[in-house]
Amino acid sequence: MDAKHVYVEDLKNHVGETVTIKGWLYNNRSKGKIQFLQVRDGTGIVQSVLGKGAVDDATFAACDHLPQESSLMVTGAVRQDARAPGGYELSLTAVTIVAQAQPYPIALQEHGVAFLMENRHLWLRSRKQHAILRVRAEVMRAIRDFFDSRGFVALDSPILTPAACEGTTTLFNVDYFEDKAFLSQSGQLYVEAGAMAFGKVYCFGPTFRAEKSKTRRHLTEFWMVEPEIAYATLDDVMNLAEEFITFIVQRCLERRREDLKVLERNTALLEKIRPPFPRMSYDEAAKWLHDKGLPFEDGNDLGSPDETALSQAHDKPLMIHRYPTKVKAFYMKPDPQRADRALCVDVLAPEGVGEIIGGSQREEDLAALERRLEEHKLPRAAFEWYLDLRRYGAVPHAGFGLGVERTTGWICGTEHVRECIPFPRMMYKIYP
Amino acid sequence: MDAKHVYVEDLKNHVGETVTIKGWLYNNRSKGKIQFLQVRDGTGIVQSVLGKGAVDDATFAACDHLPQESSLMVTGAVRQDARAPGGYELSLTAVTIVAQAQPYPIALQEHGVAFLMENRHLWLRSRKQHAILRVRAEVMRAIRDFFDSRGFVALDSPILTPAACEGTTTLFNVDYFEDKAFLSQSGQLYVEAGAMAFGKVYCFGPTFRAEKSKTRRHLTEFWMVEPEIAYATLDDVMNLAEEFITFIVQRCLERRREDLKVLERNTALLEKIRPPFPRMSYDEAAKWLHDKGLPFEDGNDLGSPDETALSQAHDKPLMIHRYPTKVKAFYMKPDPQRADRALCVDVLAPEGVGEIIGGSQREEDLAALERRLEEHKLPRAAFEWYLDLRRYGAVPHAGFGLGVERTTGWICGTEHVRECIPFPRMMYKIYP
Repeated sequence: MDAKHVYVEDLKNHVGETVTIKGWLYNNRSKGKIQFLQVRDGTGIVQSVLGKGAVDDATFAACDHLPQESSLMVTGAVRQDARAPGGYELSLTAVTIVAQAQPYPIALQEHGVAFLMENRHLWLRSRKQHAILRVRAEVMRAIRDFFDSRGFVALDSPILTPAACEGTTTLFNVDYFEDKAFLSQSGQLYVEAGAMAFGKVYCFGPTFRAEKSKTRRHLTEFWMVEPEIAYATLDDVMNLAEEFITFIVQRCLERRREDLKVLERNTALLEKIRPPFPRMSYDEAAKWLHDKGLPFEDGNDLGSPDETALSQAHDKPLMIHRYPTKVKAFYMKPDPQRADRALCVDVLAPEGVGEIIGGSQREEDLAALERRLEEHKLPRAAFEWYLDLRRYGAVPHAGFGLGVERTTGWICGTEHVRECIPFPRMMYKIYP
Repeated sequence: MDAKHVYVEDLKNHVGETVTIKGWLYNNRSKGKIQFLQVRDGTGIVQSVLGKGAVDDATFAACDHLPQESSLMVTGAVRQDARAPGGYELSLTAVTIVAQAQPYPIALQEHGVAFLMENRHLWLRSRKQHAILRVRAEVMRAIRDFFDSRGFVALDSPILTPAACEGTTTLFNVDYFEDKAFLSQSGQLYVEAGAMAFGKVYCFGPTFRAEKSKTRRHLTEFWMVEPEIAYATLDDVMNLAEEFITFIVQRCLERRREDLKVLERNTALLEKIRPPFPRMSYDEAAKWLHDKGLPFEDGNDLGSPDETALSQAHDKPLMIHRYPTKVKAFYMKPDPQRADRALCVDVLAPEGVGEIIGGSQREEDLAALERRLEEHKLPRAAFEWYLDLRRYGAVPHAGFGLGVERTTGWICGTEHVRECIPFPRMMYKIYP
């Protein structure tokens, strides 16, 4: 077997050559003197035709009874064949069985989600999970390309932090030597320091919320990108968010159309995602909910059913701005026109998906921020460094955070975010 | 002030135009009727010449006494001037002081490291820290470009994990609802599952080690990239590591030369970083240490002084392979030629920097791995999913991990890794 090792996705460049594919058995149909071995190698699946006599009898017989997911190397000539799945086929001249698998627990038929989640390490091998996680990788690549090409400096915020950013009830505690630390819920406070140093920055990493929610939208560990810009206002980041979301969606349409096809995604809905996005103040949203007869209480934050209703009513992401100050984080700047409203925005993805972005203009006034810390009963000492950003060179600034898994779920049309991260973490789920 | 807002790094495209820079005062020299305001905006520093009469007297006087790091917007015509730092100068026609800073604690002169670390959120604004963190961002970009362009799928491993990978003594404990979890020390076990699904994958995120080391090489939180490849051997990943390190270094030379100049880095040493890299077995390294008269005990892992000595003796990264099995992790495959040696490699960066990569071929045999878990007294139940990877489609596979901050430190010629991450975490350091 001295043939060149190639990957299935590169077969198109090797038509007529004899090559070796190193992979796993995905499926096998036998017709007596001829077997159709479907071999996957992580980049695709290729139908490999094995005729009796092409290999020794023992190997031919072994292939006939090989369990799914057994590892094998197959060598053969590459033929273009429009009827073959993927468009190419191998006419095998050699097969090496690397390891015979035990009977594979995940059959090609349907399984319950609990079972699949317990076997996430194997479930990853299925076509649909492949497609979702390739889209996720593309979303992450698009995020970095967007900011890197616009002069933002990638500046990672720490995970281990001494203070809470969004409130203390949803924090994970860590034993930090003789001390206590928390897992970061958001890198925002740190990227604010970064924006004062570099002008435009973003952090992009895992984020943690000890939320006792068991909804389809919640993970305890998820990835978030957080751009932050000095000398920017709420309007600036609303415009940026619009451009950013468009970039991500169009990039996935451009590069991952095959994966979206596997997922049977209605891509016509994604084609529509272009500026301008509809914008609505919180007060307008509240009125809309009342008009629809939804039991929404004025002054409250929007709940999941509210977001779902608003999001289903639009075919583009909906930007809701200026929520009541009291339901939002301490660092948001109140609207100078109306102090009980914050200069903030939530972006709700359409089709009932809900919030994928939360952002705001930050309070840059030292005295106002000090008052806010007190009102929110936050430990002043832990925030001294953050107050320094207002002591030394305060400027208007703003930013937002976008959740990767919710965005991926929206683009893929996946109902639950648990499929949108390789190894999901939820309230009762930390294995494997 | 309706002039266009541009960034200092883009001034070259606006010569002759009147533009606005939004930034902070870096330094101010006054010569009576003329002031030279050095304004930084995160992308660079521009000398801005303010003549008496160009603005009203009150503004002129205010500028004269403006503390460092006050925020201001300056408008003026862009002039090319070879004598000006950066090559361009502004002739100001308007100045808006956004916020006068309190007296800035970090003067342009030298400070002690403890003080600078306490003020990391401000220290980030200094030229040297800027240069280092821009190189770090470039290293991260290069890492992703390298793997993305070679068909690897980015597949994030979880941070919250139920089991130890490298040993339990250096784990951070997390309260996970009613349960216990650990912060991941390595995503390797997870990327192995990924490699069986996608062929070639990498994870890239923060990693945690509760090490009580207070050396210049240790952080408790650092970023690591971990590629993993199905059907790969130790030789394959040694070759890949060589190509990978070369790519990162040459990319930084290509794109961040100005930053390396700020850091006064001897780039001639980096130019040499091209394949082939020297390779040495552990036994050869042990002999080398003995010959040098170093007090190295055969059979032990290499210590910091050993790594430093070996690393200083080479002008390229040194690849040391086949360490004793007993000093290495449970998942490494023993050398079939000699069972007491593991198929592993550590790559030591030159100039005394030490280890930047650790990698190995993994044990793919189920029975051998089960024995290894027992020998290492690891909790079998937590590893059942990992054993599944050997039950269903075991193949030879290999990978490595590269630490971002050590690599950045090497490229920058920075003595201590604490300057190579925006907000370093160390044994007694979690603020800001």
